[in-house]
Amino acid sequence: MSTTTIRVHCSRDYDVLIGSGLLQETGKLVEEVHNPCKVAIVSDSNVAPLYLDKVAASLSAAGFTPVSFVFPAGEASKNLSVYADILNFCAEQRLTRTDLIVALGGGVTGDMAGFAAASYLRGIEYVQMPTSLLAAVDSSVGGKTAVDIPAGKNLVGAFMQPLRVICDIDAFETLTEEVFHDGCAECIKYGVLESPRLLEIFAEGTAKENIEEVVAISVQTKANYVENDEFDTGLRRYLNLGHTIGHAIERTANFTLMHGHCVAIGMVMIARAGEGLYLTEPGTTEKLIRILETNELPISCDFTTEELLDGALADKKRKGDLISLIVPKHLGECLTHTVPVTELGTIIDLGKETSV
Amino acid sequence: MSTTTIRVHCSRDYDVLIGSGLLQETGKLVEEVHNPCKVAIVSDSNVAPLYLDKVAASLSAAGFTPVSFVFPAGEASKNLSVYADILNFCAEQRLTRTDLIVALGGGVTGDMAGFAAASYLRGIEYVQMPTSLLAAVDSSVGGKTAVDIPAGKNLVGAFMQPLRVICDIDAFETLTEEVFHDGCAECIKYGVLESPRLLEIFAEGTAKENIEEVVAISVQTKANYVENDEFDTGLRRYLNLGHTIGHAIERTANFTLMHGHCVAIGMVMIARAGEGLYLTEPGTTEKLIRILETNELPISCDFTTEELLDGALADKKRKGDLISLIVPKHLGECLTHTVPVTELGTIIDLGKETSV
Repeated sequence: MSTTTIRVHCSRDYDVLIGSGLLQETGKLVEEVHNPCKVAIVSDSNVAPLYLDKVAASLSAAGFTPVSFVFPAGEASKNLSVYADILNFCAEQRLTRTDLIVALGGGVTGDMAGFAAASYLRGIEYVQMPTSLLAAVDSSVGGKTAVDIPAGKNLVGAFMQPLRVICDIDAFETLTEEVFHDGCAECIKYGVLESPRLLEIFAEGTAKENIEEVVAISVQTKANYVENDEFDTGLRRYLNLGHTIGHAIERTANFTLMHGHCVAIGMVMIARAGEGLYLTEPGTTEKLIRILETNELPISCDFTTEELLDGALADKKRKGDLISLIVPKHLGECLTHTVPVTELGTIIDLGKETSV
Repeated sequence: MSTTTIRVHCSRDYDVLIGSGLLQETGKLVEEVHNPCKVAIVSDSNVAPLYLDKVAASLSAAGFTPVSFVFPAGEASKNLSVYADILNFCAEQRLTRTDLIVALGGGVTGDMAGFAAASYLRGIEYVQMPTSLLAAVDSSVGGKTAVDIPAGKNLVGAFMQPLRVICDIDAFETLTEEVFHDGCAECIKYGVLESPRLLEIFAEGTAKENIEEVVAISVQTKANYVENDEFDTGLRRYLNLGHTIGHAIERTANFTLMHGHCVAIGMVMIARAGEGLYLTEPGTTEKLIRILETNELPISCDFTTEELLDGALADKKRKGDLISLIVPKHLGECLTHTVPVTELGTIIDLGKETSV
């Protein structure tokens, strides 16, 4: 049983453990970083039936006292009402400042349980246990926690690094093909940012066979950006590649499309716009499209420029009247392109298939 | 027009400005620390009619773009639902990471608007403008932000220091006697902790005549503790004097009693218990009672030990099975007394009048 350990260095250093068979080792792995205490396991209605008992039993065996809170699966649950329910649960269970929250599930669980941990009693420790590929390579690392509000995704939250991230790759076996590929989109993003090796794996369509390596390279890539810009004031915005338009698509579709799918489309559109603006090497968009299609990801959507523009204007990355876009120079290297928000419509237009 | 400036040194240094006529100078005073931007002024239905126009006009004159959110006055509003309304308002007004929140009002406003600022887009800057004595000397300084949940007061929040605190002492003139005296209780607390001068003023009943000095000494005392323990892991717990039992009283009374009034009773009870445990100089309780009575503050309540114990067990300061109490050695110096939670009932019993 191999385990890859990636150390994230920031305001608090912590390890991301990636490997097979880690869920049943939860108690031992948490005990390495925290004294036995009460543990509120937060999970959703899809993941809890699969893994909650296993995780709770392992925690109990190591001397922890697990209690669990399960909410209805889905992005629609990532709101301030479920967040309030988690907080009330922690208070009813009388968790103190030295107790712990474990987020067991996908990105919705990790983001929301993380924000609950960051704010309950003004902050208690938490451990991320991502069970989806997307959560493993994206939300579980870097300390961004959040919930959605009606005006937009992730508009409320906190920066708080987890105590440890425990990623059991066996959990991916229960993901549907669609959900697995959704996670691939973020991994391909890391490839476009800086990893030829990731692009090679995804171009060959061999992500499943190399999943531990895929997660490890993705997490290490994300860690590099997080370490240099923990609070997202500069370099970290590179991780936003494909996300400005991607979030706009998610929002315009009322969150009926999956996050990674929207990021895939967002990457294609910004690459195409980049070619139109002579920022991106010609042919980059075509190569990117082939890689995405190999991994069953979408490359376009039918929304109008006006619809997408409205969604994009709620973007957190916007500062005053300027917006920073991440644009591929070629596959493996990107640049920042900051424009007045008034030019964003033109860029979205350029990103549409019809513009080529 | 005199202004006292107290510099608070912590993760981010900032000034607390205390003086007369500061409300109409808001724009200039904010402009000294932040470029003109959009400003969401958060206030309640009592304070807004008195000062909102003045503050907004001053901000406009200095080049800021003020928008305002007013919620129903009262502790009952300090909940996750009003908090959500503030966040949605900020999002609808499209505040970005470089915009600002101004909290104009008492402790409820400051705590809740502060938490909204700490979590909107994972944190934007905010300015505290306390209009009550209690908020001026307590919640507006130190970066603790919070909302209440059904299980208890201030159980959810964040540590985030304000950009500046602007305290116009003229605003206290519109406070009722009861509300003014409520604030006096926290000032007397600072006296019991370390300030003979504050105790002298309150023993003489001359707080109003010396209000700028009272606020300045109180803020400086609080700043000393905050600077040495910003995240409340040790020394800062001294500020909790009178609060373990005080919060229990507030909760048992369903928040129908005022905070400072409950802290006054809590201080008397812990002083009396301290005398019973030979931790406190004999006669301390009597002296404290005289000072509180001079300032029209209550010194006892009718709740049973069981009722208070239940409220006290939800205290954030509790770590596992131990609870840290702050006990006066004499007026002007306190100590920490950490006991198993199982002994708390005995201590509350000792604190009751009937025990002497």
